[in-house]
Amino acid sequence: MKNYADLWVGYGERKANRDCEHLKKIRLSGAPESDCIVKNAVKELKNGMKAMLDAEPEIVFGEAAAPVAVTDGKSLRESEEYRITICDDALSLEARSGAGILYASFDLLRTVACERDVRKAYAEGKTVRPSNPLRMLNHWDNMDGSIERGYSGESFFYVDNEIVIDERTRDYARMIAAVGINAVVINNVNVKQAASLMITDRYFDKLAELGRIFAEYGIRLFLSLNYASSIEIGGLDSADPLDENVIAWWKEKMAEVFGKIPTLAGFLVKADSEGRPGPFTYGRTQADGANMLADIVKEYGGIIIWRCFVYNCRQDWRDRKTDRARAGYDNFMPMDGDYHDNVILQIKNGPMDFQIREPVSPLLGGLRRTNQMLEVQIAQEYTGHQIDVCYLIPEFKEILGFKTYCSESRDTVADIVSGETFGSRYSGIAAVTNTGNDFNWTGNYLAGANLFGFGRLSFDTELSAEQIAEEFVRMTISQDDEVVRTIVGILLPSREIYEKYTSPLGIGWMVTPATHYGCSVDGYEYDRWGTYHRADHLGIGVDRSDKGTGYALQYNEPNASIYNSPEKCPDELVLFFHHLPYTHKLHSGKTVIQHIYDTHFEGLEEARKLAETWDALKGKVDDAIFDNVRERFERQLFNAREWCDQVNSYFFRKSAIPDEKGRQIW
Amino acid sequence: MKNYADLWVGYGERKANRDCEHLKKIRLSGAPESDCIVKNAVKELKNGMKAMLDAEPEIVFGEAAAPVAVTDGKSLRESEEYRITICDDALSLEARSGAGILYASFDLLRTVACERDVRKAYAEGKTVRPSNPLRMLNHWDNMDGSIERGYSGESFFYVDNEIVIDERTRDYARMIAAVGINAVVINNVNVKQAASLMITDRYFDKLAELGRIFAEYGIRLFLSLNYASSIEIGGLDSADPLDENVIAWWKEKMAEVFGKIPTLAGFLVKADSEGRPGPFTYGRTQADGANMLADIVKEYGGIIIWRCFVYNCRQDWRDRKTDRARAGYDNFMPMDGDYHDNVILQIKNGPMDFQIREPVSPLLGGLRRTNQMLEVQIAQEYTGHQIDVCYLIPEFKEILGFKTYCSESRDTVADIVSGETFGSRYSGIAAVTNTGNDFNWTGNYLAGANLFGFGRLSFDTELSAEQIAEEFVRMTISQDDEVVRTIVGILLPSREIYEKYTSPLGIGWMVTPATHYGCSVDGYEYDRWGTYHRADHLGIGVDRSDKGTGYALQYNEPNASIYNSPEKCPDELVLFFHHLPYTHKLHSGKTVIQHIYDTHFEGLEEARKLAETWDALKGKVDDAIFDNVRERFERQLFNAREWCDQVNSYFFRKSAIPDEKGRQIW
Repeated sequence: MKNYADLWVGYGERKANRDCEHLKKIRLSGAPESDCIVKNAVKELKNGMKAMLDAEPEIVFGEAAAPVAVTDGKSLRESEEYRITICDDALSLEARSGAGILYASFDLLRTVACERDVRKAYAEGKTVRPSNPLRMLNHWDNMDGSIERGYSGESFFYVDNEIVIDERTRDYARMIAAVGINAVVINNVNVKQAASLMITDRYFDKLAELGRIFAEYGIRLFLSLNYASSIEIGGLDSADPLDENVIAWWKEKMAEVFGKIPTLAGFLVKADSEGRPGPFTYGRTQADGANMLADIVKEYGGIIIWRCFVYNCRQDWRDRKTDRARAGYDNFMPMDGDYHDNVILQIKNGPMDFQIREPVSPLLGGLRRTNQMLEVQIAQEYTGHQIDVCYLIPEFKEILGFKTYCSESRDTVADIVSGETFGSRYSGIAAVTNTGNDFNWTGNYLAGANLFGFGRLSFDTELSAEQIAEEFVRMTISQDDEVVRTIVGILLPSREIYEKYTSPLGIGWMVTPATHYGCSVDGYEYDRWGTYHRADHLGIGVDRSDKGTGYALQYNEPNASIYNSPEKCPDELVLFFHHLPYTHKLHSGKTVIQHIYDTHFEGLEEARKLAETWDALKGKVDDAIFDNVRERFERQLFNAREWCDQVNSYFFRKSAIPDEKGRQIW
Repeated sequence: MKNYADLWVGYGERKANRDCEHLKKIRLSGAPESDCIVKNAVKELKNGMKAMLDAEPEIVFGEAAAPVAVTDGKSLRESEEYRITICDDALSLEARSGAGILYASFDLLRTVACERDVRKAYAEGKTVRPSNPLRMLNHWDNMDGSIERGYSGESFFYVDNEIVIDERTRDYARMIAAVGINAVVINNVNVKQAASLMITDRYFDKLAELGRIFAEYGIRLFLSLNYASSIEIGGLDSADPLDENVIAWWKEKMAEVFGKIPTLAGFLVKADSEGRPGPFTYGRTQADGANMLADIVKEYGGIIIWRCFVYNCRQDWRDRKTDRARAGYDNFMPMDGDYHDNVILQIKNGPMDFQIREPVSPLLGGLRRTNQMLEVQIAQEYTGHQIDVCYLIPEFKEILGFKTYCSESRDTVADIVSGETFGSRYSGIAAVTNTGNDFNWTGNYLAGANLFGFGRLSFDTELSAEQIAEEFVRMTISQDDEVVRTIVGILLPSREIYEKYTSPLGIGWMVTPATHYGCSVDGYEYDRWGTYHRADHLGIGVDRSDKGTGYALQYNEPNASIYNSPEKCPDELVLFFHHLPYTHKLHSGKTVIQHIYDTHFEGLEEARKLAETWDALKGKVDDAIFDNVRERFERQLFNAREWCDQVNSYFFRKSAIPDEKGRQIW
């Protein structure tokens, strides 16, 4: 008995497609039978068809095509593209790499698992090219086994400072490859203590083995790097990127590391951020730091992914001029074009930090001559800790669809990170992952939809949130149409509901300091993190217009003008951009204060309804899943009530404006 | 070189009294030369006189008196009484026990250390009887070496779950005996994990040795007891105090424990409090629990000290009827008279939890037929973490001097806990101590004045806060009059200054949750701890009058009427008892809101002056002491500024009432 669930690679019995003659023979073309990834694809196909349909398709091999030389994101996408067609004698899966074959195989398996008609699905042929070159998970796992912002147990990569490789490791690779992930960072971006030793002899053998396992599922291994390694493990007294000794040390170190871990694809670096060391310490730019490392790893085909989460985390709350939201743009825009072509800047979706509602970072659409990657967070740090159900794919869809006006066409975030807008050499999308060693991997079973969904969406940004949710439910919970409809009906509005009972109108925060779960309206208001709501007796919000911090002007037009104006700014972001009286009328026709009251009462009530809806599924879904989600809903309702009552009480006590509907405020 | 300071038992060189002929011969009468405590007294006298005055007094022994049979608090005090007189041929120290001789010796040594004239000090004879039978320190040391609410390093009793006995242990005993402490609880009242094993074979030898060392300085050893020991180490499934099996288990256990630790004086128990187990679990009363244990330890002369800190720590903040302040009285008054005569109820000074300002607990003066002990806290949990200087003796003086109106005369708290008001069998005063293994024992060197002062005051409640402060400075820092005046001038107003820049008018709390250091006005406002300020746009405070929770009526008259009336209630407690508009006029003539602004600006400014005053001592006091206190003052000023600005901003933003003086509010 495994100590973890199989989720969408479990392949339970299915009814549909049992009589499908096209499944008798499957032809794989374009990649050699000897390819390790192809071998895994064959294994998945055989096991999956057997388990789901009790079928034993004949697997035959067509011609191998000329392999694509992968030298950049564009060629990577080409190599991963696949085509599925129905031929006279077989179902044909074609690609130009083992990875393409693997993705085609998972496409077919998904079609069967979702009980879609294979004939219809592929009748006209189906060609899929991944939307993004890099589709990445960032694990914030520490080597002692803890996970920063982890809400589903401990790390399955590390136990007591040792790397663990077992059956779960392989199933993890299968599971994420099945949804299209092709890159993983296995250690926390906050590289502390033991993790600094990851690039030493102590861990090379295990890392090489891990990298090989990943590679056989088309997954690239990345490591988070301690920028100050030359000091911490090198014994130098500097980490200055222009210091000859530092450069020499890194050259030797990288030769060793890439020699020992042949599959290593590169590094993720959090520098000059929240206490982490970086080039600023030495009066150098972020580009100096990133380029130094990039130049050294270039000969090994390595990539340096450099996080843009650089801001002053020691702000004085009295200071209303400094604006954390501005920091990313202010720190990184001036060097647009200076980053070398194997550097990627990894940009959080919003300018703050994964709040339930933020505007899109103006770096996305600002930077034009720099490789860019979008970073989202499926670990529910600010969105309910995998206690509260919060299906994030609708949010990611909004972000990807955001028009940045950075060019005449192809100007959405999705376009930019696909690499197409600016012809970036590398690009993609990364998620801080929500996994741990809990039996179901993600704490709340329904949080699995975010892991599944992130992979699916990063592979194909055209998919709808609903389609992804439905696939998740059909593949992992039930094929019963009514059950599917019910659970999709819980997932789809859950993010909006969470937003309603938590922080209103884009203001964000109001969370318990440090843990970030639960309400504390003033929790960060007088603190050093740059995260303020500035509420007083008359109004609330941060003036980021041209009359305030000027952050709104970091956007391209017309976004800048829209955000800059309290009248034009969309309601859901209006307090992010403007300090407004409680009596200000929103586009909805409601005042700010009445919006706060209404959404909080509604959000709580809607959360209650979600829980009731789930309750009605008893007996219709697996008991363990039912009980897991039910227990989480109980905690969610407690949390939702606290948010509702605390926020309403806080603003009533402060504004002295009563609820128009006379509901109970404490 | 010791790794700790000698504080007031260091005996540095002194100038005064060098020519005093009365110091040539010292006669000790009333206790035998062979008494271990007397031997320690002789050692102290010889070492002290030699070190301070380069003198070698002849120590002679007078007649031994009939020893006092100590059967209760009164006889204990008689036995500890001493008299110092000047005879023709010698200085005479008389007592009726070794402890009395020891205290007399320390009195003489203190006189010399403070450079008071020995002749004058004892010319008319000086007789001192301790004010309180039990004068106790409560250590909240955990067996892993950590200290709950410890701000001066780790435990010196425990390292890695082992008891440590070394030179520091002995010097600790000397140090606290020198200020009159005669009882110590060495482990945390929250008895968890390893500490439950304190009453097992694993620790008996060390405890016996520790008890013997303490006994030789007149100090009784107590242990904190896990009420659920019958389950945790006994293997029973119950801790029901009326269960025969439980009683039988305790009988056997106590026979073993008192057999193995002959000096053991009894136990301190925190039951049914903040998650600790207790008799309520079994539907029994606190008296049932305490009496069961007391009856069993009685034959060993043992005492059960039972804490009254029992309240609902899972309150709903929406609930305005439940009042944590009421809980002590409500839980313990109904059983007044039911507690057996070797039970002592230990009562925190206020009804909440060691805030900078609270009314005196109404149990003190409420209970009339129950042994009582006052509990104060010199660990600066809510009073600055031994970062901020906060000399607490003025507060303790106020508490001890509080008239409870429980009888015609002798009705102050001091009278009650001395045992005299009600002729209690046992009574006294305990402090949660502020010590740790820091070099100077207490973190901030000036926090040593609270350790020194608590001992001195518990021994003689007539001493003034100023006299105690001066003694502390003269004995441990300097004999220079100007330096003494300066430091006493820092200590004396420090508590009032701390109160000014923190929470106003008795409302308390407003602290960072969990750590309890630093400002967070709403930190506990929407939490489960029963600690609310209820501030809204119009006013602030908790209505504990007869129109509110009725807590004010728990006092004897006229206190009840005074506290019940917003007009009569003293300003400094008015928000503890009443919810008042910000515009309410205090006795001071100021409005509540202006009082908040004024005291906060003043408190910050006064703290700055204290720091400047300290700065001027550079070169005049030991550099290590100077640097230690200076560094703490830097952190205090940061803290004071945060408190000042956050509290003022919070109330300005909420009330919208500007400061009359137009000062900067953020």
